[in-house]
Amino acid sequence: MVGAILHINGFSTVHFSPISNHSRTNLAPPKPPMLVRTTQPHPYWASLNSDIEAYLKKAIPMKEPLIVFEPMHHLTFAAPRTTIPALCLMACELVGGDRHQAMAAASALLLLNAATYTHEHLPLIDNRGLKPKLKPMIHHAYDPNIELLTGDGIIPFAFELLARSQDPAHNSSSHILRAIIEISRVMGSKGVIDGQYKKKLASQTIGGELCHVERIKRVVEKNEAALHACGAACGAILGGGSEEEIERLRKYGFHVGMIQGLVQNGLREETKWISNLALKELEIFLGRSRNVDAISAFIHA
Amino acid sequence: MVGAILHINGFSTVHFSPISNHSRTNLAPPKPPMLVRTTQPHPYWASLNSDIEAYLKKAIPMKEPLIVFEPMHHLTFAAPRTTIPALCLMACELVGGDRHQAMAAASALLLLNAATYTHEHLPLIDNRGLKPKLKPMIHHAYDPNIELLTGDGIIPFAFELLARSQDPAHNSSSHILRAIIEISRVMGSKGVIDGQYKKKLASQTIGGELCHVERIKRVVEKNEAALHACGAACGAILGGGSEEEIERLRKYGFHVGMIQGLVQNGLREETKWISNLALKELEIFLGRSRNVDAISAFIHA
Repeated sequence: MVGAILHINGFSTVHFSPISNHSRTNLAPPKPPMLVRTTQPHPYWASLNSDIEAYLKKAIPMKEPLIVFEPMHHLTFAAPRTTIPALCLMACELVGGDRHQAMAAASALLLLNAATYTHEHLPLIDNRGLKPKLKPMIHHAYDPNIELLTGDGIIPFAFELLARSQDPAHNSSSHILRAIIEISRVMGSKGVIDGQYKKKLASQTIGGELCHVERIKRVVEKNEAALHACGAACGAILGGGSEEEIERLRKYGFHVGMIQGLVQNGLREETKWISNLALKELEIFLGRSRNVDAISAFIHA
Repeated sequence: MVGAILHINGFSTVHFSPISNHSRTNLAPPKPPMLVRTTQPHPYWASLNSDIEAYLKKAIPMKEPLIVFEPMHHLTFAAPRTTIPALCLMACELVGGDRHQAMAAASALLLLNAATYTHEHLPLIDNRGLKPKLKPMIHHAYDPNIELLTGDGIIPFAFELLARSQDPAHNSSSHILRAIIEISRVMGSKGVIDGQYKKKLASQTIGGELCHVERIKRVVEKNEAALHACGAACGAILGGGSEEEIERLRKYGFHVGMIQGLVQNGLREETKWISNLALKELEIFLGRSRNVDAISAFIHA
């Protein structure tokens, strides 16, 4: 039953719907599902995150020079977690791959998220010599110069991990290059950086309500949505998915990211129709994997 | 005649030595060469730099969103130039490759140098809320937040360029992955970032003269030397060089970078013996390429 388990902040929320999601997308309005909320994180989701963390702890050991690796280790695990790395592994398994084929990509996505978060909170002086006012206050464990440098070290390290994950037995070098292109594009001028500019502009201008909502949507499209789309597409690419599977999962990831970003910005009302669009992208996987329910759980209710 | 043309700040300096460099490395001290200084940049070096610039201008067009691409374009070309990208192309041609096989790697190295330079000069507030004092003053064309973001966009873009340069006709994906590993390592925790930490520490401590020289050497090893070694090795890898050729050119690049870094730090006296070590690495290429003289020109007199 697609869409049976929805996901709220990492905890599973079981919905018993009287109709299957497949047919639900053709009917409007759907009957409201019965909701039973549990307090346990989804076990599949928890197992993926635990594997990613173990992989990264091995990849960033606490070794010499400690002045480099200690902040790298700390800042990687101190950044707020996202569902992007786990979505990447899920997509890989959904197309029939083994999660280890996408482990480096999932870890790279976690690292890049940590670098972005670290740099986003650096206290910079503006061109008029004024201290920053708009940035949210967070605890800085290190001198900002160290945090800037560490972020700069984490970004290439993410690409190194990915490039090193080539497995001659699977002849996956072209898959890895494709994943590098996907990730570098979404982190660069066409994705997160453009989104950050838009976020900065949005925070500096005041407009009407509709205009405000549209502006938030543009920011979310370039940030959370683009990153989730990239994560899901990379997982599908590295798992050996077909072009159709890759594009379906990319769209699924995009919708999941849109929902998350809009909810975080207080626009839950805008997300209702997106859940159905997202679940529709998973229909081709129905009956082909026991994980369809789990991956559909990424949608925030 | 290896070592016939030496290179000072991009301009050729022709040395007429009474002995070939090959035999000179076995004799000490060498007779001082006669020196005729010209005012023209070395034509081979100039042609490589011109090709890299043309490639990058095409890769970073002035297109929408201009708020992203305009600073990216400006900061890429505003950073002080290094000889690393041209050395990369030279190494590629020296092992028998075509310069276009290494063009993306050379451009990636230029981009990463620009990102490092941009971030190195950001005005950050330290943990005590104090404005920076030690950083050299440079003109900031943009708000520091924009410069931070642009640097963060340039780094993944460098890897994107490289990953996209796969040419199925040459089946070069494994070469490209190897170059990505080389570049990401040297830019990350084991290279430039470690070097930047060491530079920061060196600028904050005061010691004896010998200690000071040794400290500068450690910094140069991780910065200029490691980057030139990486550039030369990547060129050789992408040009299809043998393992011996790759390692010889890596060592040559390392020595070239050491010389440049030490000269920039006022330690020209420390570089004399390094030139001979560098030229020795080029001996296996003698008679195999008309460019041996040109590549030996990278050594600063």
